[in-house]
Amino acid sequence: MSSTWGNVLKLSIFGESHGPAIGMVLDGLPAGEAIDLDAVQVQMDRRAPGLTAGSTPRREADLPHFVSGMLDGKLTGAPLCAVIENTNVKSHDYTNILHLPRPSHADYTGSVRYGGHNDIRGGGHFSGRLTAPLTAAGAVCRQILEKRGIVIGSHVFMIHNIYDTPFDAVSLTAEELNALNKEPFTALDLQKKREMYAEIARAQAEKDSVGGIIECAAVGLPAGIGSPMFDSLESRIASLLYGVPAVKGISFGDGFGISGLCGSEANDPMYYASDGSVKTRTNHNGGILGGISTGMPLLLRVAFKPTASIAKEQQTIDCVSHENASLVIKGRHDACIAVRAQPVVEAAVAVALLDAMLIQGEMTSYGSSKAQ
Amino acid sequence: MSSTWGNVLKLSIFGESHGPAIGMVLDGLPAGEAIDLDAVQVQMDRRAPGLTAGSTPRREADLPHFVSGMLDGKLTGAPLCAVIENTNVKSHDYTNILHLPRPSHADYTGSVRYGGHNDIRGGGHFSGRLTAPLTAAGAVCRQILEKRGIVIGSHVFMIHNIYDTPFDAVSLTAEELNALNKEPFTALDLQKKREMYAEIARAQAEKDSVGGIIECAAVGLPAGIGSPMFDSLESRIASLLYGVPAVKGISFGDGFGISGLCGSEANDPMYYASDGSVKTRTNHNGGILGGISTGMPLLLRVAFKPTASIAKEQQTIDCVSHENASLVIKGRHDACIAVRAQPVVEAAVAVALLDAMLIQGEMTSYGSSKAQ
Amino acid sequence: MSSTWGNVLKLSIFGESHGPAIGMVLDGLPAGEAIDLDAVQVQMDRRAPGLTAGSTPRREADLPHFVSGMLDGKLTGAPLCAVIENTNVKSHDYTNILHLPRPSHADYTGSVRYGGHNDIRGGGHFSGRLTAPLTAAGAVCRQILEKRGIVIGSHVFMIHNIYDTPFDAVSLTAEELNALNKEPFTALDLQKKREMYAEIARAQAEKDSVGGIIECAAVGLPAGIGSPMFDSLESRIASLLYGVPAVKGISFGDGFGISGLCGSEANDPMYYASDGSVKTRTNHNGGILGGISTGMPLLLRVAFKPTASIAKEQQTIDCVSHENASLVIKGRHDACIAVRAQPVVEAAVAVALLDAMLIQGEMTSYGSSKAQ
Amino acid sequence: MSSTWGNVLKLSIFGESHGPAIGMVLDGLPAGEAIDLDAVQVQMDRRAPGLTAGSTPRREADLPHFVSGMLDGKLTGAPLCAVIENTNVKSHDYTNILHLPRPSHADYTGSVRYGGHNDIRGGGHFSGRLTAPLTAAGAVCRQILEKRGIVIGSHVFMIHNIYDTPFDAVSLTAEELNALNKEPFTALDLQKKREMYAEIARAQAEKDSVGGIIECAAVGLPAGIGSPMFDSLESRIASLLYGVPAVKGISFGDGFGISGLCGSEANDPMYYASDGSVKTRTNHNGGILGGISTGMPLLLRVAFKPTASIAKEQQTIDCVSHENASLVIKGRHDACIAVRAQPVVEAAVAVALLDAMLIQGEMTSYGSSKAQ
Repeated sequence: MSSTWGNVLKLSIFGESHGPAIGMVLDGLPAGEAIDLDAVQVQMDRRAPGLTAGSTPRREADLPHFVSGMLDGKLTGAPLCAVIENTNVKSHDYTNILHLPRPSHADYTGSVRYGGHNDIRGGGHFSGRLTAPLTAAGAVCRQILEKRGIVIGSHVFMIHNIYDTPFDAVSLTAEELNALNKEPFTALDLQKKREMYAEIARAQAEKDSVGGIIECAAVGLPAGIGSPMFDSLESRIASLLYGVPAVKGISFGDGFGISGLCGSEANDPMYYASDGSVKTRTNHNGGILGGISTGMPLLLRVAFKPTASIAKEQQTIDCVSHENASLVIKGRHDACIAVRAQPVVEAAVAVALLDAMLIQGEMTSYGSSKAQ
Repeated sequence: MSSTWGNVLKLSIFGESHGPAIGMVLDGLPAGEAIDLDAVQVQMDRRAPGLTAGSTPRREADLPHFVSGMLDGKLTGAPLCAVIENTNVKSHDYTNILHLPRPSHADYTGSVRYGGHNDIRGGGHFSGRLTAPLTAAGAVCRQILEKRGIVIGSHVFMIHNIYDTPFDAVSLTAEELNALNKEPFTALDLQKKREMYAEIARAQAEKDSVGGIIECAAVGLPAGIGSPMFDSLESRIASLLYGVPAVKGISFGDGFGISGLCGSEANDPMYYASDGSVKTRTNHNGGILGGISTGMPLLLRVAFKPTASIAKEQQTIDCVSHENASLVIKGRHDACIAVRAQPVVEAAVAVALLDAMLIQGEMTSYGSSKAQ
Repeated sequence: MSSTWGNVLKLSIFGESHGPAIGMVLDGLPAGEAIDLDAVQVQMDRRAPGLTAGSTPRREADLPHFVSGMLDGKLTGAPLCAVIENTNVKSHDYTNILHLPRPSHADYTGSVRYGGHNDIRGGGHFSGRLTAPLTAAGAVCRQILEKRGIVIGSHVFMIHNIYDTPFDAVSLTAEELNALNKEPFTALDLQKKREMYAEIARAQAEKDSVGGIIECAAVGLPAGIGSPMFDSLESRIASLLYGVPAVKGISFGDGFGISGLCGSEANDPMYYASDGSVKTRTNHNGGILGGISTGMPLLLRVAFKPTASIAKEQQTIDCVSHENASLVIKGRHDACIAVRAQPVVEAAVAVALLDAMLIQGEMTSYGSSKAQ
Repeated sequence: MSSTWGNVLKLSIFGESHGPAIGMVLDGLPAGEAIDLDAVQVQMDRRAPGLTAGSTPRREADLPHFVSGMLDGKLTGAPLCAVIENTNVKSHDYTNILHLPRPSHADYTGSVRYGGHNDIRGGGHFSGRLTAPLTAAGAVCRQILEKRGIVIGSHVFMIHNIYDTPFDAVSLTAEELNALNKEPFTALDLQKKREMYAEIARAQAEKDSVGGIIECAAVGLPAGIGSPMFDSLESRIASLLYGVPAVKGISFGDGFGISGLCGSEANDPMYYASDGSVKTRTNHNGGILGGISTGMPLLLRVAFKPTASIAKEQQTIDCVSHENASLVIKGRHDACIAVRAQPVVEAAVAVALLDAMLIQGEMTSYGSSKAQ
């Protein structure tokens, strides 16, 4: 159950970092939608290691093999299953974590949870590698949304206290997002991006790691998508995103900042635009009110902690001798996982939004009819 | 579906602000647990209006009437249903929102979502009043947890940029939480609490409102509770809390702050305490790793926006004339909803933790056997 | 969880036979649908005791009080909650079942399941009385379906081996079903109905009870509703109906009889009708293929066991003395529960069909647009 | 969603008959359980084609490849995923069903449901081949149950009106079931089995097919497993089994026969056995009361229709010319699918029973502790 999610659209993720394969089943997709596999691969590549500053030298082809639910490039309506083989596994690097759990990792908690039976090699089911199938699921969903004019994108908003310019919450466009959502590690301010790169390189050189924040947006979403209470867009998106390793905070619109405002500042004044559509002059609420989209850009921020695996010596416990111990982690690790997380965050948003639209009957079971 | 949540423990919340009643069904509770109805009422009263600075003068008895699942003060195992009558309804105050949606409220989005058929009186199903049944559900669940040594509490961490002292993430005790979790509006620093009061009073005098942040904790939770990915403690807690109106941000441990740290700072060193238990010297991760409890205090923060209903004139649209318009909201409103949110946040944590424990078979279907 | 069901449409049933109230929450209904409360009451009355031969003299008003989700006779989109008060409770009749479990009842199994904490008065949550809220839920759903031309009805197909004429599987009409679905205890052959009445009266006179079979149908259902595997119409309908006490068998189309046929007999030949619609010349499959509606009448049969509570002396165990014992059940009981089950069976079909249509986006979230 | 099922234990089945692979994800299994892969294969082989009278000559290795959730022969607690490659696909046989839907198949309904986009080759996701992953899931679950003394088995109760001896509902033993649950096509009366064989051969020779009924049982199940209403054992088992193609009826205990009895006949008298356990002298209720196990043998019957694909000429529609047409189906087909269904029925029962036990906390998350 732990890796199963959904209402009309149900997502099940499987696999362990060093097992034969990882993958996902996405059930409830509308039939007949054409899926561009190259565009799927673009998203997989954005998440893949080795492409960004300070990322682990472990290279995986990360080719999702669709074994169910797709025929001649179109969705059949059967559950979509993608299998991604684990091709580049070096398990010998991890042998000592059997008795020396890595701080800030799930080694200890996973062992307690599963009575020591979980596969701890490479983090097992807790590995960040499990975000690859989520990315594949999102890469399919976002294509379906894009045909209906809904575009999702993100940028690296912060790395170790170096802040990029935030999105313009009112006037953000699909074009701006499309310029960001096909490349790994994008920022709005190129100078800040260079500083971030340098900061990651510095951390790596110092056998350390740094954290970061991703800001994600969706534009083109019509007003009225989502539901009150536990099917709010926030609940659904957060329940997916908190399944992503290293996420410690999720906020919408101004997020924690809105708690410092007065109502007269935070309330977004409404007006009719010249084309008759309803808009707000500010967007402190991030495009969501009452769990439901307003039609303004949907905005969220996701806080990632620094990579837990660092090469510096750390204090931990020795589960065999039952004494305190020190640990030096070897193996291949990113100095900053946040920079690989953009397609993952976007994927979670895509899955949640498509589910919400399907719940409301915004597209029929074979979907194409309402596409643009 | 929008108001239904759960795995083993399923929560369904119903009602509208000005309808006959609101309430909840909580299915899957262990049978045989004794429930102290006075203790339930303590939680209801903490959330009730009129008891805290700047809260709406609308007074409700807010007495949950348990019509199913309880007999002679014990849970029977049948679905627990609590009905709370709406006794103090003044609908005439709300007539003009039919055509003048209130900024930052769900009036407009709810109307689009439900084709104008939703009950807009008092916010209908989107009203903060719907947190009363959630509080009742949590008040039952927390008693079951308390018998097993798990105690939940909170304080108002911030009101309009006035910050209370944070919880001690390492050494927080059940006693400290018990001193906080029976009163409305508690803070660790009484001077700060006075300043917060003054700030709320000021906002109210200025026909304005202010936001705030609740910090919540659970102690006594054993290590190993929770699951990877979408049944992570964070996913489950956040999916409930984002169902609470006005919540715009949720974070665990250091939250967004952890993104500004290096791994060598953020990683919590592990050690064996003198009693043989596993502990960490810091707790930046807020007691959760890989979605699973570490045994250290579980810590989260929840950002509430300022009350959307303010008495100042605001800009909005006129849905009848289709022209831009101005609006002055009458009626009864809190100047700061965050100060009534403590039992609500604690309730969500209680429901999510009990569900997680039941999933793992940590207590049998009639539960009492493993109680202390 | 045990009493919660659903996908887009989620049903939660609560209450115990002798508690303050029973009821249901139905979440996910389309907003804006007008609901005729008199028509709801017609269905409640069909199920109510005292109206049919040999039914218990316990009379309940069984008035569902809609406390959420309805305003001015229309659905608001918020969860629909109906509360039915238990007004005519005589608990003293049941005191001895505390230690003498009634054969074929859930007294013993419920006690084991819930550690003896379940409310056993009147059967508690296991009582047939819990079919009243299901009937209310179905009474709402069927009205929504009827506006789209889908009509559900049933007849008593068999009482203690007295068989009514079966439905015409090919040419059954909405008119025929409408003549059956507003009255209690209907049969196609009035002579057989008289014989059934006599048989029930005979059983009652002999302090015994009899079983029966309900045949239920839906016509007007378009082809293409339902999904393969576990969301097949059969899976969804059966999962609801097996929640009804005393049901021991459910079948579709020819049911168990089809196992005795050859493929050349059982296969329903397809053809184009003169109006261009696709039909089959026979309907052994009961209007469902691959879990999906064919457009032909949907047909199912539901087997009810004889009422377990009989006035004859029976053998049971004494849970106090731990010795074998005999038991004479007093109190008020139906001699045949099957004759009150028609609106319950129809209700389950209505709920399942509406859920299936909502999953597929066959009606929008505020639904009315596609109504006739 | 259509192929996703479950509460604590969640099952997701994917694949199409002629796609690259089929498979399943089973999430929520207890960690640490040793799984005998040879015993899994025994169940796969029982279902495999070509091993029983009149079965299709299509031979598949049907080797489930466990790519997640298993390490060194033990469950890790991560989602268990088995992938079964489709190795022997001859799609050219099926080209004409594109415009000539086969009677009693899902060709037509699937095409309407999915707008013609579903993979119709070999029946696609509607194929009986999708019972292979269900069999694999059940083969794992039954091993976990067997360690706790719960044994499941079945026999072919009827083929085309040739009836085997029924199970002894009161005194059936694990030994008797173990003698049946490792072989394909088992019956209690060998003479009847020979007659069944002959009947199938006759049907095949006549280009026809026959139906059948499987009787399945579980013994060793303790009293108290299951829940009232929609999580009744009957609801859960039926919701899985109605996902199996060709199933048209499911009943428990005496099933439809119980409707012909009086209460004084159908009620199972209770008594204390000499070992102090609670038993019933008869078992008309099939070991379930109120949705909960009684401790007596659990008994159910499942009606399968005759194979829809027959070599005789049949009437159908031509979806291209929109005229009535005749059809002769070529390709490889079983003359009786019921005889391959035993491990499938047993698998569904195993999955449902294990889920019920996990919901109730009858085994911990890493399960082994309560095993025998």
